[in-house]
Amino acid sequence: MHNTLVATVAIVGASGYTGQETLDRVLAHPALELYALGSDSLAGRPADALDPRLGRNGFRRIPRFITNDAALSSGADVIFLCLSHEEAAALEPPPRGVVVDLSGGHRFAEPAIYESWYGFRHPFPERLGEWSYGLPEVSPPSGRLIANPGCYATAALLALAPVADAIEPSGVVVDAKSGVSGAGRTLSERSHAGSVLENTAPYKVGAHQHAPEIAQALGFPVTFVPHLLPVRRGLIATCYVRSTGPDLRELLEERYADSHIVSVLPEGAVPELARVQATDGAEIGVFEDRLTGDSVLICAIDNLGKGAAGQAVQNVNLLYGYEETAGLRLSGVLV
Amino acid sequence: MHNTLVATVAIVGASGYTGQETLDRVLAHPALELYALGSDSLAGRPADALDPRLGRNGFRRIPRFITNDAALSSGADVIFLCLSHEEAAALEPPPRGVVVDLSGGHRFAEPAIYESWYGFRHPFPERLGEWSYGLPEVSPPSGRLIANPGCYATAALLALAPVADAIEPSGVVVDAKSGVSGAGRTLSERSHAGSVLENTAPYKVGAHQHAPEIAQALGFPVTFVPHLLPVRRGLIATCYVRSTGPDLRELLEERYADSHIVSVLPEGAVPELARVQATDGAEIGVFEDRLTGDSVLICAIDNLGKGAAGQAVQNVNLLYGYEETAGLRLSGVLV
Amino acid sequence: MHNTLVATVAIVGASGYTGQETLDRVLAHPALELYALGSDSLAGRPADALDPRLGRNGFRRIPRFITNDAALSSGADVIFLCLSHEEAAALEPPPRGVVVDLSGGHRFAEPAIYESWYGFRHPFPERLGEWSYGLPEVSPPSGRLIANPGCYATAALLALAPVADAIEPSGVVVDAKSGVSGAGRTLSERSHAGSVLENTAPYKVGAHQHAPEIAQALGFPVTFVPHLLPVRRGLIATCYVRSTGPDLRELLEERYADSHIVSVLPEGAVPELARVQATDGAEIGVFEDRLTGDSVLICAIDNLGKGAAGQAVQNVNLLYGYEETAGLRLSGVLV
Amino acid sequence: MHNTLVATVAIVGASGYTGQETLDRVLAHPALELYALGSDSLAGRPADALDPRLGRNGFRRIPRFITNDAALSSGADVIFLCLSHEEAAALEPPPRGVVVDLSGGHRFAEPAIYESWYGFRHPFPERLGEWSYGLPEVSPPSGRLIANPGCYATAALLALAPVADAIEPSGVVVDAKSGVSGAGRTLSERSHAGSVLENTAPYKVGAHQHAPEIAQALGFPVTFVPHLLPVRRGLIATCYVRSTGPDLRELLEERYADSHIVSVLPEGAVPELARVQATDGAEIGVFEDRLTGDSVLICAIDNLGKGAAGQAVQNVNLLYGYEETAGLRLSGVLV
Repeated sequence: MHNTLVATVAIVGASGYTGQETLDRVLAHPALELYALGSDSLAGRPADALDPRLGRNGFRRIPRFITNDAALSSGADVIFLCLSHEEAAALEPPPRGVVVDLSGGHRFAEPAIYESWYGFRHPFPERLGEWSYGLPEVSPPSGRLIANPGCYATAALLALAPVADAIEPSGVVVDAKSGVSGAGRTLSERSHAGSVLENTAPYKVGAHQHAPEIAQALGFPVTFVPHLLPVRRGLIATCYVRSTGPDLRELLEERYADSHIVSVLPEGAVPELARVQATDGAEIGVFEDRLTGDSVLICAIDNLGKGAAGQAVQNVNLLYGYEETAGLRLSGVLV
Repeated sequence: MHNTLVATVAIVGASGYTGQETLDRVLAHPALELYALGSDSLAGRPADALDPRLGRNGFRRIPRFITNDAALSSGADVIFLCLSHEEAAALEPPPRGVVVDLSGGHRFAEPAIYESWYGFRHPFPERLGEWSYGLPEVSPPSGRLIANPGCYATAALLALAPVADAIEPSGVVVDAKSGVSGAGRTLSERSHAGSVLENTAPYKVGAHQHAPEIAQALGFPVTFVPHLLPVRRGLIATCYVRSTGPDLRELLEERYADSHIVSVLPEGAVPELARVQATDGAEIGVFEDRLTGDSVLICAIDNLGKGAAGQAVQNVNLLYGYEETAGLRLSGVLV
Repeated sequence: MHNTLVATVAIVGASGYTGQETLDRVLAHPALELYALGSDSLAGRPADALDPRLGRNGFRRIPRFITNDAALSSGADVIFLCLSHEEAAALEPPPRGVVVDLSGGHRFAEPAIYESWYGFRHPFPERLGEWSYGLPEVSPPSGRLIANPGCYATAALLALAPVADAIEPSGVVVDAKSGVSGAGRTLSERSHAGSVLENTAPYKVGAHQHAPEIAQALGFPVTFVPHLLPVRRGLIATCYVRSTGPDLRELLEERYADSHIVSVLPEGAVPELARVQATDGAEIGVFEDRLTGDSVLICAIDNLGKGAAGQAVQNVNLLYGYEETAGLRLSGVLV
Repeated sequence: MHNTLVATVAIVGASGYTGQETLDRVLAHPALELYALGSDSLAGRPADALDPRLGRNGFRRIPRFITNDAALSSGADVIFLCLSHEEAAALEPPPRGVVVDLSGGHRFAEPAIYESWYGFRHPFPERLGEWSYGLPEVSPPSGRLIANPGCYATAALLALAPVADAIEPSGVVVDAKSGVSGAGRTLSERSHAGSVLENTAPYKVGAHQHAPEIAQALGFPVTFVPHLLPVRRGLIATCYVRSTGPDLRELLEERYADSHIVSVLPEGAVPELARVQATDGAEIGVFEDRLTGDSVLICAIDNLGKGAAGQAVQNVNLLYGYEETAGLRLSGVLV
């Protein structure tokens, strides 16, 4: 039996992409009640200042924006941190309640990674051990402080973690492609539509901060290159591995046999961005190269869904004993 | 109090875009039960032959495809016809039950329009009078045979019908833009991705079959030009009118004050495709040209949602006394 | 016989979209010699700091960037101003040489328009009369100070100017759609890829600054609404008019019979963005609405080509007696 | 000194994408004269039946379409075969003149590859040895029968061939992404805009026919997965290799030091689709993964340019002693 007791929610940084998507799931959740909506830029304004749909007839009444500090100390049972890495790392978590950090501010046990890959010195290195890395299918959340995984890391790990002991650890390649919302709402040359439309390019080649995250979870490093696609949302990670013997498809099918969130596609079927966009699910395809015999594991997710907000709510569901998929976007067969 | 008795559903032509989207809403509907799934090309195959998501763990069991004839005569309480105009026009509706025709096969009282605008002679001209044009906000469905409006006509009429008596009937212009799914799944040069991507073009200029549909509903003709956008889904109709005096914004706000489906945006706010995509709602913006003083009424819908499948289910909801929005996609604030 | 004497060129504001596209045409021009490349943000850096292609093996040597002031006073024979409206309006043109202003800073005889439509008080209202509005097919450039037309105004006027005396001046509608590069390289929420991709929306409805520009050239106002398309470049203006009698197609075909830049398409053929993208040409289609009998004139151009840089160079070609199409992008039948 | 004698050209299959793009280059070529334009579907019609731009004022006069057989036996000096693999394989080349086959019909020395990877038995296996594989930077054309490389193979080989002796041959991965025009003008479910827009998916995973082409040229197989991007044109191949010691960047820079077609980008600069689209050039970026130390070589080309028509004309230029870049699209710095 699932818990049905209501928990109150505060979203800190609600006006960014991950904040808005988290709000979307919370509003659809039968047991989460929105309590505080934090945004320093929108504080004092009604919810529909962010999006006209929030003022729509028939929508549940949504509170006005307050400052992020006020939201953080609102006393809500669950706090979602939807901030930049550095801002989140600098926050004092409140003394009680569940905190889910959607940034990378608490994903690493090793503080040196922040200086080396994130460009800042972590202000609370000694507390990093208090956070658990919540990737439900790979490392379920525990405790009350949850570091929500990065989008690329989620896709790569859903495909690779179940086979990590069955592949050669050297020579693994993860070639990933993501829609632009992965870069957030902040304005930059790279996210300018004139640079994105009818274009595709790699970025941070071999130097993206999700690489050490993947390595930490797998226990060995992979070569990782992300590319920016001219689509709003969605992410595909094409993972190249060499089995040491076991049948990788079998391992993946076993792992996800009971999952309502991750599907292993039948032989020959390829994952498609369009089928996971705006959902909190994942699709995995398993292939073998005809010439080399090496294996190709391909995972598609929505970068803002299973790659961010959906996973954050899934983590809360597991911690609170709610139905695992409560509030998530999983049904539907839109064209 | 809303009716909650279950009605069974057959979808005829379930493998096209409107069929799949209708299926999507029926699967989400608390009182509609999927009974028969018709597709001549997929007959005999399981539902996931259309889309892998239909075979997913956790989805309600969905029946195998049968032929369209078998679906039509399945005895379901509600039949959705998701066929071409000419195929739908040629069908004998079953003797009982609600039939919603999503094609243009039964939208006109005047049979001559079929020869002149659709390119075929209507096989049952004498029965056209038995069908009602079901655009809930403008002409609610009545009887058991419902002609579901065209997507362009829906957007234009949501904006124009409430002000039809308050504008000069001569000189009205409707300039519309639609995503490619409006043209359905059929392969054609115009729907080839190489013609669509990084392109935009008008088509059937001044000669599109939704023009007489708009004229029939308004009582006067408008100049109508559709354009094809490089987007999957969504439709915007920009309507140019001259008021004879009344405040057009006021008329629209009054008409939609209680609607959970159509929103009139506040002054200055523009409709956006992205906010209505994959939903069954509509947004209307009202503006005045600074130089000419003429009015611009802009309506955005999803061509497959409010412009097709969503409206079809809304029509059934009204006929059966279900909650008007049951099964529809209306909530959510996706980025 | 065409002039072949070389003229030197300075581009002021070369690092924006119109600057880069002007540079593109100048580099391809047989008689224009690039002399100074101005950009305050790139001053001191080599040309390939703007685009790696400018450092490419085989490219003509291109000078380093200097400041805009230095470029303006470089003594070049031809100066292209590729700045914001307000910056361009504030500049003192050098005492000799041709100056082509690609912004809106000198397009209006009436200074009040700047306050009312552009949001700033024109610093040199008394000199506005010294500038000629250079739209070669409509009002050829004269003198040495040329105001290059706006992109929307160009498309609308190419279609409307030749028929202006043959249509009812009241009730004309121009519904335009443009790619994002029309908004330039400046970062803004509206040009963020997350707002543009898989979206389309009107903006500045009935209040865009190209409306008074069209009105000034035609002698009467039109209702004008621009929309932002999810494409990099290209612009379509769909113009709705009512003939007072004359055959509008005939008038347009006559006007453009000898043009190598503007084509009137044969009956039934529709302009397409894709065919004019990255070119300096224009396509015009002429149609009549079946129901209302009103005319629809549709003009497609590239907003950065005929709508900006291509037209600027065309203006210089006419002033200097070069071949009208020298340096322009007009040939080719890319897919 | 370059040859300037005129050669006549016939294009067989001129109405497909590669045919049209070949026509584009031939029309721009100072020494190639278009003599015959073959298309079975357009035979008898004027050139502008393919594209209105071909009827434009100012364009060189272009001959009417004739049948492919007539074009093949027209006696032209140079024949471009722009047909399907199987059609091209089945043709008897004329007894004299240069023939460039843009399909895969003559790329392999080993006939068995056709049955195994192309799905047909090659009709003239004994003559395959008469064809040379013309990838100018890797294996310059020789003789009069030229097999023009595949688009993916071109991109992969430009990056990999110069370093083939300096990397471990096992474990090489080529992850490629292409615009839709790579699939040609033929209608199919996969090229339907509704499947392409706002989507991205791998296809023929580990089983694409360009894999044996890459293997034949390198001397060892690689794992190869192509993905379909929602863009009209352009292709990026991200190649993952492990150096056996040599500096791979140095090897690539040396190889392309004098090339006007292939640029090795400076350290840190990433190839972008947008900069090579609609050109016949290539960009290569060289990177090292921070965690694994493995190398990433990324090559961007236009699939229809350097990946097809541009390379075909480049091959002819080399055979005839024309300037290597004659007729090619290489200049310009479009936004």
